[in-house]
Parts: sequence; structure tokens; C-alpha cells
Amino acid sequence: MRAPASNLSVNADRLWDTIFETARFGGTPRGGVRRLALSEEDRQVRDWFRAACEQAGLTVTVDTLGNMFAVRPGKDMSRLPFGIGSHLDTQPTGGKFDGVLGTLAALEVVRTLNDAGIETEAPLCIVNWTNEEGSRFAPAMMGSAGYVADLPVADILARTDAEGVSVGAALDAIGYRGPAEVGAQKLAGFLELHIEQGPILEAEGRPIGVVEHGQGIIWYDGRITGFESHAGSTPMRLRKDALAALSEIVLAIEALALAHAPNAVGTVGEAVIARPSRNVIPGEIAFSAEFRTPDAGILDALDAGLQAKVQEIAARRPVEIRLDTIWRKAPTHFDPAVAGAVAQAADKLGLKHRPMVSGAGHDSFHMATVMPAAMIFVPCKDGVSHNELEDATKADCAAGANVLLHAVLALAGDGGNGFGQ
Amino acid sequence: MRAPASNLSVNADRLWDTIFETARFGGTPRGGVRRLALSEEDRQVRDWFRAACEQAGLTVTVDTLGNMFAVRPGKDMSRLPFGIGSHLDTQPTGGKFDGVLGTLAALEVVRTLNDAGIETEAPLCIVNWTNEEGSRFAPAMMGSAGYVADLPVADILARTDAEGVSVGAALDAIGYRGPAEVGAQKLAGFLELHIEQGPILEAEGRPIGVVEHGQGIIWYDGRITGFESHAGSTPMRLRKDALAALSEIVLAIEALALAHAPNAVGTVGEAVIARPSRNVIPGEIAFSAEFRTPDAGILDALDAGLQAKVQEIAARRPVEIRLDTIWRKAPTHFDPAVAGAVAQAADKLGLKHRPMVSGAGHDSFHMATVMPAAMIFVPCKDGVSHNELEDATKADCAAGANVLLHAVLALAGDGGNGFGQ
Repeated sequence: MRAPASNLSVNADRLWDTIFETARFGGTPRGGVRRLALSEEDRQVRDWFRAACEQAGLTVTVDTLGNMFAVRPGKDMSRLPFGIGSHLDTQPTGGKFDGVLGTLAALEVVRTLNDAGIETEAPLCIVNWTNEEGSRFAPAMMGSAGYVADLPVADILARTDAEGVSVGAALDAIGYRGPAEVGAQKLAGFLELHIEQGPILEAEGRPIGVVEHGQGIIWYDGRITGFESHAGSTPMRLRKDALAALSEIVLAIEALALAHAPNAVGTVGEAVIARPSRNVIPGEIAFSAEFRTPDAGILDALDAGLQAKVQEIAARRPVEIRLDTIWRKAPTHFDPAVAGAVAQAADKLGLKHRPMVSGAGHDSFHMATVMPAAMIFVPCKDGVSHNELEDATKADCAAGANVLLHAVLALAGDGGNGFGQ
Repeated sequence: MRAPASNLSVNADRLWDTIFETARFGGTPRGGVRRLALSEEDRQVRDWFRAACEQAGLTVTVDTLGNMFAVRPGKDMSRLPFGIGSHLDTQPTGGKFDGVLGTLAALEVVRTLNDAGIETEAPLCIVNWTNEEGSRFAPAMMGSAGYVADLPVADILARTDAEGVSVGAALDAIGYRGPAEVGAQKLAGFLELHIEQGPILEAEGRPIGVVEHGQGIIWYDGRITGFESHAGSTPMRLRKDALAALSEIVLAIEALALAHAPNAVGTVGEAVIARPSRNVIPGEIAFSAEFRTPDAGILDALDAGLQAKVQEIAARRPVEIRLDTIWRKAPTHFDPAVAGAVAQAADKLGLKHRPMVSGAGHDSFHMATVMPAAMIFVPCKDGVSHNELEDATKADCAAGANVLLHAVLALAGDGGNGFGQ
């Protein structure tokens, strides 16, 4: 017995239950999850995930970086598996959905196919990437970076956490330094479901975002050096006020991003006055700043605009401003065919959708550098993520999983059942 | 033998030596002084000071708050003593001159009068005020506040430091809870020599500032509440950026003060982002702000201007801004006769001077509320104070002490020697 095309749908309750079942591993009193990469809690959820995959008939392999690949055979085993998944690690005070939804929705897709007795043309491969969050070990998206050879495996294994424990030692400690060579599990493409981690879909009442681009990013570290002096006895004209200079930079970054809205954002996230005191003019401030945009030309323009503004401020105010570019990442352009399959699946299911740009980084950014890839976003409450209050509705999670299901059927071939048309 | 009027001058080397001699008590490796009020180091300098005063023939009494009064008899003991002095406590990483110069210059004035055999008409009284700095026990200018009954003595004695030690217990611990009633030592007036703690005199090449006014002050505590969200995935138009709002406030305070320059200053000294992160839009910031001006009308205008600007920002940006006025102090107007004696003394000595406004608070602010008072400023290097690098020249210190000497002769009566004309 096979479910008719119009009815093929994931089990929303089952998906929801697995999200809450895994949220026990590292669950916090406030309803969040603390499941740092390669921690004991990570081991627990990995063991659970491996058992669930094997129970669903998948063959699980683990590579040297702990990336987990669970393969479901297809009719045509000469084809590469199509990859779906995300990550199961969390921020230190993270939520239940970031990463988890994409990984467990992939499992739910397989379970649904199993229930419906559907065999895809190409195999499928559920992936759980190691250390997407980057909270315990830097950088973020570590497992997928190794997979696409953006970083050497030996380099990654040698990275250490705040206690000096290396990635390699942490993998050994939880038994997840696998035998498979990193990158050996080839994939035909990759599709990742994720909560938006932003407010747009919720604000517009659309359950599905078709992620077509990933923002390019520039990260800056800045330092403004003026001179600390007494707030009461230093006339305005003799001041070297680092905070006033920073204030101009903050507003300049905001104005530059607004000038390119909606295709750019700019933020000063950190600003620390050295030796702050109520009656002392701030003499030194360290700050971080960033721009993000999906357009490489705009990224250049934002950078040039900020550099010019900083020079102008430093020429006008008696302070030194140092601005170092510490990271620059070109925009990601996802595969039109994979993104198109997502949009078509949403259309078929009658789910309102819109094209989107991913502001946050994801493992799929790495995938997109070596294979056709895209992402599906679903709304999260108030746009909140990386927070114990992170939340999403059961209906939206199911909608995302159904779009994943039908896009995968189209991309991997539905085995002649007509679901993928 | 008496020195002729034109030659009467302090011993610059002796004054300088006493400054360095007392800098041993709490001296730091970097050349500064850490001598918190009522600490063991404070006891050491007090013992030294008492001994030096007694050796100079003065009668030392200590009141309940540890304020020290060293009286030198005058010809007319029916007149109240004229007060000169300052304080001997320092900031945690303070310098050798703040407070110390005024106290030891007063001692040097007495020593000079002794050497010259001059007896003033009115008695003189050197004062060492307890806890001017306010670093260990709040508030600052504590001893003089008690003296003028700005705060009840019992209230002051009950104030505690960070370790829970009360002022009363600390006074007992170093043996400086004296028998004299606070305020019992009446004074005819008060004159305090102090380093400027600002850059004006040095910039203008003038050794003497005649302090005619003390700035009125408003202190604010502020809190801006926006919403933390992901710097990459939150569009500009949906942001609730607390730092951008603060930046507007910082620049508004600067602009308001500049609009009333040179008679006003405005500063944001502290700004702390809650939970700062490079890729999170700042959702909450606590900050402090202040205005100072010698003009009560300008103080009102600055306050009204800021309140209006804050309302305008909060109406335009999706953030809440709370601004609490935590302290408001009216401007101090020093006594024209005392300040005039300072200017005349500088003229007589051929020292360039200018009228000044004290931006920092001093014990003399309290004195001015109950008696004729004024202050003398001398330059300090780069305007730096409350810092181990605090510095002043021997020549400027001597110039200030000489002006103090000749102003005191005029104010207390030189006993017919013609010095005070």
C-alpha cells in the first residue's frame, strides 16, 4: 500500500516528539538545551540518533571528525546519495530547534518514506555535522569545513577548547572519532531545513523560506584610543573621547547598511570601554563590527564606505582608530535547481513561501562550494535563536519537513510514484 | 629677623621633599600612591602629619570623623582661625599631588611664617579632611560634608566599605575617631590649593588658577532596552538596537555641551552592553551620563535638552530609554573677597593667572556653603589626575604655595608687616 501523492505527509506528532525526546540530552531547567559539541550530552544524542537511524534501516558511518552519515539505499545505487540533515550540537544556552529540526526532519522524511513503502531512485543520506555552533571549539561549521576541505583535518583535530582539550581527544572521549575518511561519503547534493533565526517569515505570515543566497560577511575588530581625563575639568575642545568617536562609527555602520537595505545589514555587537568610570572621559574602547549582504559588490561598497568614514572621523577627532578586517567571506549562492525544487514543493503543498537570504552561517554554505545545495527556512518565534527561549510551532516544523520530503522526492527521484513532479 | 616683604617665599625644596616623603605611605611601584581613606597607609600619613604640625608649634585636634585641625595662634585670639588645607587620602591608583599638595603647602606656609617670625592677626588652622576621594567609603568629600552638616555624623559613621567595615570601625582601627565634636572647630574662612586636574593652565602657560566657581552637576543613570537578535538574520527595519540608540544619546550630550561651551561639559563615562556578542544586536545597555556647568540656568537647559532628545529618540526608535537623575548639585560660587586675595597675591608675585571653574568636586565646595572660601589651582602634567602618572612641577607647586601664603597673610592679617597689602 502506498499513500497517494496528494496525501504524502510527514507525521507531525512524531517529528515533534523526537524534538522533545532529544531535548532531554542537555536539557536546561528553562526549557533550552546545553549540548556542546563532543560533550557527554552530544554523545548521548548521537547514540540516540544512530540507534534511530539504524532502526529506520539506515547504514550509519562516522568519519574522523565525527560527522555522521546515515544512508538509505535507492533503486539506482550507481547514483550518489542526496544529502539531508543539519547538526545536533547547541549553543551553551541554546534552544531545541537550531540544527535539531533539520536533522530530525531528515529522519522523519526517511520514516515517512518507510511507512509509505517508497524507494527513491537515488539513495538518501542523513547527515549530522560535527560542531556547527563553534561554541566549544572554534571555528563554527567545523565538520562541514573539514568535509569540503576548507580546513585541513589535522588542523581541526588539533583545535582546543577553553580547557585545552583537543577536538581529537574530545572525539576519542565520546567514541566518535570514526573510521571513515573525511569527505569519503560523496553526495549528489544537500538540502538543509532550519529555523530562520530571524523575524521575517513570522512577520509576513509565511511558513516557508526558500533560501537562495547566504550572506557574505566582513568581520572587523576595532580599537579607538583617545585619552582618559576628568569629566568635570576637561573642556569639550580638549577632549579625546573614544566613546563619542565610536558613537559616530555605530551610526555610520547603521546608515551604510540602511542605504543598501534590504540587501545589507550592519552591526556593532561588542563595545567595551577600558577602565570605565562615571566621571572619566572614555579613553579607550575595543569594539567589533560586521556587515552582511548577499551581494559581493555591496560588500565591497560597505567596506569602502566604512573605511572612508573611519578615516574622516579620525581626521576630525583627536583619537586614533584602528579597524582590522579579521574575516571576510564571499556571499554564498545556492543552487537554483535545488532551491527551485523547494519552491515547487511548497507550491504543491499550498504553503506560502518567499525567497530568502540566510543571514546566519550554516553547514550548507560549505556544501554549496562543492555540490548543488540549498536550504529551507521555517519561522521561529520572535526571530529568537541561540537562546533557551527559541521556539517554533509544530505546524511550521511539519510544513518544513513536508517541503523537505517533497523536494527530496523531486531531487532524488521518487521511484516512479509521481510525488516528485 | 624678618624677611622683607618682597622676599617672603616658601621653601620650594622643603615643600617638594615633604610631598615625596609622604608619598612613601602607600607608594606604588609605578610612582603613584594607594592610600585609601582610613587605611593603615592613611594612619601612617596622619601620624606623620600630626608630628610635623606639632613640631611646627601647632595644636592638633581630631574630630569624631577623623578630620584633623592644626591651629597656629594669632595675635588676636578673639578672631576665628582662617582655614587652609586639603586631604591626604588618595584614589586606589592615585598620584602624589591630588589633595597632598594643598595639605602640605598649608604646612609649608606655617613653616615659612615660623622661619620668618611672622605672627598673623587671626589664628591659622591647617585642615586634613577625612575621605575626600570617596573610593573606599561613599560619598566623596565625606569629612567636610559632616563638618558643614550636609550629612548627619551618625549616618557617615555607619557607611561601610566593600568588605562591610564601617567608617566608625575604620576610624577606631587606626585610632582616628577623635574626641572633638564635628563642626566645633569654627573657621573664619577656607582656602585650598589643589592641582587643576584638567589641562587648561598647562595649555595656556599660566601657573595660577583663581577658582571662582565650582560646577553644578547632574548625574544620570540610564538603561536602554531593545531586543537581542541575530546580527545576520535581522533586517535593519526590524532591529531594536540599544547601542545605536545610545550612540545618538552620546552625540546629543556632546552637542548640548558644545552648544554652551566653554561653560559646560557633558560626558558618558560608562556604557555596558548586557551579554555582548559579535553577532548579536545589543539588546540592553546600562550607561551613566553627566553634565557640569557653573551656571544654574545652563544646567537646567542641558537637562531639559537631554530629556527632550531622549524622548525624541525613544519615539523614533523601537527601544525603551530610562534616564534617572541620581544626583543634582547646584553650582558653587566662591567668595569674591577670598578669590580676590588669591588674584592679588598672584599679581604681587608676578604670576600669570586666570579665573577658573572647578570641574571636579572639592572639600572647599562644602566650606563655601557656610563660610567665605575659594581655591587656588596649579597646573598638572597633561591634566592627568586620579592616576599614578599624575605629575606637577616643583616650580608650579611652589608658586601655588606662595600664592596661598600671601593670600593668607592678606586674609588673616599679616600682623603689621605689610605683607598682606
